[in-house]
Amino acid sequence: MTMNTIERPKRAPVPRATDTTLTRDYYVSQEIFEREIDKVFFKQWTFAGHVSQIPNVGDYFLHTFAGESLIIVRESAETVRAHFNVCRHRGSQLTKAGNGNVKLFVCPYHQWSYELNGGLRRAPMMPDGECIDYDKLALNPAAAEVWAGMIFVNLSPNPEQTLIEALGEPPAGLLKLEPENIKEICRDQLVMQGNWKTLLENYLECYHCAGSHPELGIAFDIQSSYDQTATWGGACFLGGEPVRKGLVTVSMTGDLVSKPLGRHSEDATLPLEVAEGLGLLPVLTRVLFHVDHAIIHVMNPLSVSEVQWTTIWYVRKDAVEGVDYETDRVVEVWRATNSEDKELCERNYKGVLSRTFVPGPLNPRAEGAVRPVLDHYLQMME
Amino acid sequence: MTMNTIERPKRAPVPRATDTTLTRDYYVSQEIFEREIDKVFFKQWTFAGHVSQIPNVGDYFLHTFAGESLIIVRESAETVRAHFNVCRHRGSQLTKAGNGNVKLFVCPYHQWSYELNGGLRRAPMMPDGECIDYDKLALNPAAAEVWAGMIFVNLSPNPEQTLIEALGEPPAGLLKLEPENIKEICRDQLVMQGNWKTLLENYLECYHCAGSHPELGIAFDIQSSYDQTATWGGACFLGGEPVRKGLVTVSMTGDLVSKPLGRHSEDATLPLEVAEGLGLLPVLTRVLFHVDHAIIHVMNPLSVSEVQWTTIWYVRKDAVEGVDYETDRVVEVWRATNSEDKELCERNYKGVLSRTFVPGPLNPRAEGAVRPVLDHYLQMME
Amino acid sequence: MTMNTIERPKRAPVPRATDTTLTRDYYVSQEIFEREIDKVFFKQWTFAGHVSQIPNVGDYFLHTFAGESLIIVRESAETVRAHFNVCRHRGSQLTKAGNGNVKLFVCPYHQWSYELNGGLRRAPMMPDGECIDYDKLALNPAAAEVWAGMIFVNLSPNPEQTLIEALGEPPAGLLKLEPENIKEICRDQLVMQGNWKTLLENYLECYHCAGSHPELGIAFDIQSSYDQTATWGGACFLGGEPVRKGLVTVSMTGDLVSKPLGRHSEDATLPLEVAEGLGLLPVLTRVLFHVDHAIIHVMNPLSVSEVQWTTIWYVRKDAVEGVDYETDRVVEVWRATNSEDKELCERNYKGVLSRTFVPGPLNPRAEGAVRPVLDHYLQMME
Ligand code: FES
Ligand code: FES
Ligand code: FES
Repeated sequence: MTMNTIERPKRAPVPRATDTTLTRDYYVSQEIFEREIDKVFFKQWTFAGHVSQIPNVGDYFLHTFAGESLIIVRESAETVRAHFNVCRHRGSQLTKAGNGNVKLFVCPYHQWSYELNGGLRRAPMMPDGECIDYDKLALNPAAAEVWAGMIFVNLSPNPEQTLIEALGEPPAGLLKLEPENIKEICRDQLVMQGNWKTLLENYLECYHCAGSHPELGIAFDIQSSYDQTATWGGACFLGGEPVRKGLVTVSMTGDLVSKPLGRHSEDATLPLEVAEGLGLLPVLTRVLFHVDHAIIHVMNPLSVSEVQWTTIWYVRKDAVEGVDYETDRVVEVWRATNSEDKELCERNYKGVLSRTFVPGPLNPRAEGAVRPVLDHYLQMME
Repeated sequence: MTMNTIERPKRAPVPRATDTTLTRDYYVSQEIFEREIDKVFFKQWTFAGHVSQIPNVGDYFLHTFAGESLIIVRESAETVRAHFNVCRHRGSQLTKAGNGNVKLFVCPYHQWSYELNGGLRRAPMMPDGECIDYDKLALNPAAAEVWAGMIFVNLSPNPEQTLIEALGEPPAGLLKLEPENIKEICRDQLVMQGNWKTLLENYLECYHCAGSHPELGIAFDIQSSYDQTATWGGACFLGGEPVRKGLVTVSMTGDLVSKPLGRHSEDATLPLEVAEGLGLLPVLTRVLFHVDHAIIHVMNPLSVSEVQWTTIWYVRKDAVEGVDYETDRVVEVWRATNSEDKELCERNYKGVLSRTFVPGPLNPRAEGAVRPVLDHYLQMME
Repeated sequence: MTMNTIERPKRAPVPRATDTTLTRDYYVSQEIFEREIDKVFFKQWTFAGHVSQIPNVGDYFLHTFAGESLIIVRESAETVRAHFNVCRHRGSQLTKAGNGNVKLFVCPYHQWSYELNGGLRRAPMMPDGECIDYDKLALNPAAAEVWAGMIFVNLSPNPEQTLIEALGEPPAGLLKLEPENIKEICRDQLVMQGNWKTLLENYLECYHCAGSHPELGIAFDIQSSYDQTATWGGACFLGGEPVRKGLVTVSMTGDLVSKPLGRHSEDATLPLEVAEGLGLLPVLTRVLFHVDHAIIHVMNPLSVSEVQWTTIWYVRKDAVEGVDYETDRVVEVWRATNSEDKELCERNYKGVLSRTFVPGPLNPRAEGAVRPVLDHYLQMME
């Protein structure tokens, strides 16, 4: 069977791009997924929430990542902690309510109680020092850090790098947006039938944008995104979503969808093309700040063939719905884009499931970030 | 991160309790579950039904345990048999109806027929001795024994111990209740999302009762249950559910919910605190007789992460609904208790699924039965 | 426990039939299923569709087998091709529509486009010879052949045998029915909860027919089917479904259910007992032609414990619904038979799942084809 006999002009041989995505096993093997839990999911920083969710001491919320449930709690005005939601007695989850305010965490099974800092306060009928040492029975901690008003966690209690070591101090442009003075107005959660790296690769390139993302393309600058993504790699990077020349924000028109964030409310003339943010890799957290709103995407692997994709939208804390913003307008671009990407990724994954799948050549420019990020992942997996 | 800096009084060091439940693998590993099938589920006695279900020769019912379907059939006035519901030709299940009365079991696939005792009667177009020997093609047997009117089975055709060897003869107190003269009035089946041993541990201790079982606590004597469970272990034990001093039965008031069982109908004064019964381990069967009703709990492992919990309520055979008892009142305590335990166990199991789970110290008194029973289980697993 | 004490006459010992089906592992093991993918599903010919589905150049339809999606496309008047539905860039499925007409296949992800013959036509921003060689990036081919108007595929691009080598030229009796001049009038798809070989064994024997298939038994000649199946084995066989002496076709009455196919419309007297067809093994394709209609059964393994069974009915291309045939009458026999077999097979598989299952003796005459076909399967699995 001759497969390809169409006539076409031939050129002189030139160097070939050899970068590809990963072999099929990485997307379908249960063994590799188990390895990722240890080597990747328990090692990297990801977004857990915003300080506005827990303003007062004792405020907490539950956060789920890689199958683990964490209690994120404000211990004091200065300290936020993350505890694994697992009682040290027989292992019951301590709280089923998604959030609340407590003085102690009391296990619903046998009423062992824990301080906000995780220390065991009391085990009924088992006084400290009699048959057990309370000191050895504190809740298992995860690492938690607040950076520019955002709470990040690392399932490892002793990460190789603190987040501030990795990211540095928040840049001036971001601080001017006062990222702690925002509020969540909407949260979308999608479950995609695919491996999390299929979704990661989708996010890392905009080769597919022109053909698939009409809404995003209005104000998002695809060409300059190629230059930007070329610098991505490693565990994290700074920088937001490039806005087309002359536009104010990423929206369906390029115009404001809410009132300016932070100290920009005092600007005589609103700056154009504001794009602050950061990315955490390889399981993607992506934070995008524009002059009037912020968006945070968080990836959560559910299994080797399922990944949850959460998008949260924020506006200025004192903005008023119906006056300063319409939620529908704020979320319009990324809600449409997510929906398009879900379909693309799921169709991609169906193809990857074919036993004949071999990864093909990546576009050197438009897909320039894919391989460096996958290389960082492979290094973690060693 | 300092995890536990709260101030508390310290005592002199004392010996520490080191008993715990099992490591996480025992609750989540598919390999261990497969091993349990061979080493535990195919080796132990469990409750299958009551003689009142099959009064006449040829009466049968289907019973499911550990993924196996058994036909429990009355072969004669004296004999009850258990056959695996698997045709010896190509393996079809012989009957799909849950119960009935037959002269022969006729396979619906190719009409091989079997006697009540399991012997092959006829294979169409394959006369005995011509191309097959009927003698070698009887249904695979499981062991079945009737003890005090209750039918117990063991998936092994040759159990290490008969049930009567293990339990001894039914005690006088139980016989006075005439356990064969009862009838089933209600059956609840719950599926719990958890390993069967998580549910077992829940049943083995009443450390959680005060906080979670208000209905049970009315008439059930928690304190004396601690002494009782301290004696549990091995493959089985005798004894019922302790009733609070001065009460007649376990109900929402401690008063009768049906008329007295057996020869107690002749008692001038009704005895207090009647508590007969037995337990089979480690996959729990729990039989509880009070003076006016009986309850049987049966655990059936469905998978490494799912277990079925069946509770059956019985009253005196000649008791009349609406006159002698109201079903709703009879089932009230344990229906509520089961529902509470389901929630506790499922929340416990979610915590055990955390990769950070390690079993913590058991309460020496209130959880005294847990480790001995788990040790018996571990011995079977060797 | 004595299992079989019924009295029965004994005969002198005679040779015993020892043929059985396979040990339990072959029906339940995930490892064996994975091996089947490589050794069987990617090696054998199966039915994919009929030429009437793609009359014009560029017409295509999707076909699924063993988890693989294939594009079956008419490349030219003479050529039909099968391509794996997997883009050579990052692996996206190329088309989600079940069928259509195209000039090029354009990948919905990054718009790489492919010729009807599978050759890469254009990758946007990646000219041929610059960073990639288009010649090396044609769609992965499967083998496709047209035989008597039917399209067959083999997931291997280089099968050990072509279909025409295996089957030979279509026999005269079949050609007289003009198998290319038929049209599909109905398609039933069932998913059976069972291993595909349980369904295969069901099809290979009619020991169960008398007891379970009243509709089929009206016009289908069970006794002569025993002789016929005795010759089955290997990768394929020719021959149709035997019709009872004196009857015209397999229907609920033995009378015509549509007008005669092909050149039989010119017959002065309609021939009786027309039965042409073929079978492909071990994953069964079964083609049955009678004088007035055709039936094609196709098996598609979905997992170790699930198999899809598709039945398609065809009549003469120019037959008119309501005038020449009633679809309900054409499909009546096999729709009922499939439904009966589904129930038999699912009950059989439940028994095979028992850990006590051992395959029993096969009936030498009525189940004569089972073991030879399983032996062919075992040979492929080596
Ligand atoms: S499991 Fe939390 S107190 Fe027992
Ligand atoms: S499977 Fe029971 S008679 Fe064939
Ligand atoms: S996956 Fe098909 S063009 Fe990229």
